[in-house]
Amino acid sequence: MEQISNLQVVPCASSDYLKAFTVRYSQNGTKKSWDFMRTHDSVSVLIFNTTSHCFILVKQFRPAVYMCEWEKSMPTPPHPEGSQEGSEGCPAPAPDEPATSGEGQESEGAAGQPEQPPASAGVTFELCAGLVDKPHLSLEEIARQEVLEECGYDVPVARLRRITSYRSGVGVTGAKQTMFYAEVSDEDRVSEGGGKPQEGELIEVVKVPLHEAMTFAYDESIPKTMGVIFSFIWFHSSMSPKYKISTNV
Amino acid sequence: MEQISNLQVVPCASSDYLKAFTVRYSQNGTKKSWDFMRTHDSVSVLIFNTTSHCFILVKQFRPAVYMCEWEKSMPTPPHPEGSQEGSEGCPAPAPDEPATSGEGQESEGAAGQPEQPPASAGVTFELCAGLVDKPHLSLEEIARQEVLEECGYDVPVARLRRITSYRSGVGVTGAKQTMFYAEVSDEDRVSEGGGKPQEGELIEVVKVPLHEAMTFAYDESIPKTMGVIFSFIWFHSSMSPKYKISTNV
Repeated sequence: MEQISNLQVVPCASSDYLKAFTVRYSQNGTKKSWDFMRTHDSVSVLIFNTTSHCFILVKQFRPAVYMCEWEKSMPTPPHPEGSQEGSEGCPAPAPDEPATSGEGQESEGAAGQPEQPPASAGVTFELCAGLVDKPHLSLEEIARQEVLEECGYDVPVARLRRITSYRSGVGVTGAKQTMFYAEVSDEDRVSEGGGKPQEGELIEVVKVPLHEAMTFAYDESIPKTMGVIFSFIWFHSSMSPKYKISTNV
Repeated sequence: MEQISNLQVVPCASSDYLKAFTVRYSQNGTKKSWDFMRTHDSVSVLIFNTTSHCFILVKQFRPAVYMCEWEKSMPTPPHPEGSQEGSEGCPAPAPDEPATSGEGQESEGAAGQPEQPPASAGVTFELCAGLVDKPHLSLEEIARQEVLEECGYDVPVARLRRITSYRSGVGVTGAKQTMFYAEVSDEDRVSEGGGKPQEGELIEVVKVPLHEAMTFAYDESIPKTMGVIFSFIWFHSSMSPKYKISTNV
């Protein structure tokens, strides 16, 4: 179980990671302006282990998810109405500065300072995934690297099947995500996975048995990305002739 | 067809819409730091018209999506390697400043200044959706408002069926998205929809016939969100006893 403590939040005046730009343009003659962030495209991989008949997911503490839950635990709704954005899951106006929370798990829940949510509130289940940030590698090669680094399976590129691609965060980032499917066996396992600890990645590899997959997908008490839900239902719909799957949903 | 011209891109030092923060914390005793953006949660609605047996989607020009394509049309890969982020569709380091493109559709493709992509490169198909930015309204009530404003159907809250919820942009925003399903008929149509032009929304309502839905979902030449793909396949998987659906995928 993760332990999160000593939480402090400060406005981020300059970030090496979040780079905001404004684009001004005319749309059918009407002048418009939009703030956006530049991003990398990304790949994700639904991994199915044919030895154990389990899906292989990754699980990690996500500060951004945690902060959403932290904010909801605050006494006053912090968001003003209205925004630039009216789409699926995009940023919006925020107050000048969130409060600062000191000791985390040890919070005493003093007046006006609600107890900090448990670390589990920020832990999400996700597909193995990575950014397309190596121009000399194909999407498949990047996907292969992520499967190896995060989950410890060495899968030849030829065994990656492209599922589809789509746009994410259309209001703010708009990056293209490409999803692959990879069947692996215990024989392909060459390491523990877990990401790159030297880059701060603390990734846990988890297995979801095939017969529990659809229940897992629709269990809203388990925080997860839409990629997990979509890929499980895709598998269910595309692979059911090949593998027996519980359809108890 | 959209016409996009007079495109100018400038760094965004301060935004009313994109608010970045840094959270510092200890994870299992290890000090960490993460830049994130505060967001609203959101709702989206898969709308199925039982009169015409069509799905009702919205289509609009998305500057962030367009800028991704615009950047790809540039001669030099602009992104350095490495980043804070290794997940599904999240922001990453960007160079100091993108170039500025002047006349859009009329670009002459001068040396070193590639032709601007067509406006269609930034037009995406999406589910009807909106931000959860009204604390006094339930998710269902917000969803109902969006269906009315964007698509012109007046649907009682009781006819909204919750599909599921999930986390989006787990690296940067982490907001919770809740997806609903609404069956409507032509009798529920009370207006043209199209969003709020006074707030700059230029939304086109489009119909996707049921028998074309799965082909549409997996056609990668049609830019769309994962919400569209997932909800179509969800419908296919959950509603197929009720409606005949092409399974030609």
